[in-house]
Amino acid sequence: MPVTARYGDPAANLGVDNDVLRLQLAHRSVRKFGSREVTDDELTALIAAAQSAPTSSNLQAWSVVAVRDPQRKARLAVLAGNQAFIAQAPLFLVWVADLSRARRLAEHAGTQVDAADYLETTLIGFIDTALAAQNAVIAAHSLGLGSVFVGAIRNAPEQVAAELGLPPHAVAAFGLAVGTPDPTEQAGVKPRLPQAAVVHREQYDASADAHIAAYNERLAAYNSRFGLAGNWTSRVLDRLRGPESMAGRHRLRETLDRLGLPSR
Amino acid sequence: MPVTARYGDPAANLGVDNDVLRLQLAHRSVRKFGSREVTDDELTALIAAAQSAPTSSNLQAWSVVAVRDPQRKARLAVLAGNQAFIAQAPLFLVWVADLSRARRLAEHAGTQVDAADYLETTLIGFIDTALAAQNAVIAAHSLGLGSVFVGAIRNAPEQVAAELGLPPHAVAAFGLAVGTPDPTEQAGVKPRLPQAAVVHREQYDASADAHIAAYNERLAAYNSRFGLAGNWTSRVLDRLRGPESMAGRHRLRETLDRLGLPSR
Repeated sequence: MPVTARYGDPAANLGVDNDVLRLQLAHRSVRKFGSREVTDDELTALIAAAQSAPTSSNLQAWSVVAVRDPQRKARLAVLAGNQAFIAQAPLFLVWVADLSRARRLAEHAGTQVDAADYLETTLIGFIDTALAAQNAVIAAHSLGLGSVFVGAIRNAPEQVAAELGLPPHAVAAFGLAVGTPDPTEQAGVKPRLPQAAVVHREQYDASADAHIAAYNERLAAYNSRFGLAGNWTSRVLDRLRGPESMAGRHRLRETLDRLGLPSR
Repeated sequence: MPVTARYGDPAANLGVDNDVLRLQLAHRSVRKFGSREVTDDELTALIAAAQSAPTSSNLQAWSVVAVRDPQRKARLAVLAGNQAFIAQAPLFLVWVADLSRARRLAEHAGTQVDAADYLETTLIGFIDTALAAQNAVIAAHSLGLGSVFVGAIRNAPEQVAAELGLPPHAVAAFGLAVGTPDPTEQAGVKPRLPQAAVVHREQYDASADAHIAAYNERLAAYNSRFGLAGNWTSRVLDRLRGPESMAGRHRLRETLDRLGLPSR
């Protein structure tokens, strides 16, 4: 049952079961891909699933750029922290938080969309994009494809925008590398925090943090299988230490201002 | 085939097919619920699916508060724009962008997590939360449950934080009302923009906006089935007109500052 791997806990159990849940619980990131192309029919299905996700007020404030060109993928791989698997994946989807469509409609209509100047609307763009992209992840998995998100596409948003010809008021939120999983990849289902650490009943209870200790042991055991050191706490603290741990993304607010997704 | 309803286009077609895709494409928002409770086993499955979604650097920067208490649901319904279905739903999940857990770990370890001061990290909180919540939406649907997101929980984030006892550095990103769909609800699968309007190949092409005209006709036809006026363009422009159309959310940046999720 995939739930034991999901929590790194042989005692974990679910009282309900179906094929969709099994697919979701067995999710893992794939960073090594076979050579088979992702077909246009598969791409169409991924996007149809993405568009079926909920969207705030039906704004549909996102777009996606499907990149297959090897040179463009290689350039994007460099921009996104030199992650070679981006070039190796047959398909790289760049998910774009896109308020430009609404801005163009307003310009054409001769009206104002001043709400788009506020952080709330920029956030809606990112939230809508994430809801859609997660549906594409599940759809890909259902078709036997693997994927991994690439947040590092936010390391250099202006260069990415230039590479993809994005208009003002649109920004790459994250990438998604897609392809057939290479069975030789050394990877597994990464355990998550115990449910008791993240679910609260009626009100938030910070004493739930007591469950983190057991998780640190489970994640350290998982990491050691792949020759990696560190438990969860140490990795979280390393990752959030300061601006020097952010690969340039501490400048995101000013960059979004320049790209036309302000944080008023 | 659900893809024709998804696009409001009898000619829409998918070249691949499976049960997961069919489930995803048939998604609709449910705002009228039967009286059956959502069981604890179902809740556990929803959260396990949510935790199986990808998360940036495994930060797992979210929590969820499961609200079943009728009085609390009623108060949250008022805070979220007087939407009665929130109180009517047997389960209301409040998805929390949660950097407080990392802050507590840092305090305990006597270290700094200065990266959490930046908009990038606040965004990661919202993105992680959205990826997780969308998996819960799909899991709910697979169990015969319906749901609808409630972005209006951001109308009054400080009051919501007080109601749920959220610690500093945590904010309600959105709600999700969950229950069994009442078959008497007047609702359908809302058509989305044609794929050609949102998918770009290699580079963004704003001329894809030419596909919006056909969509305006399809959405107006869909809306008229429910006695609603307006096409997509008019609704987008109304929704984004200005701060007065934002139900208080134009203040979100300052509110996030006060709640401890800054936008530096």
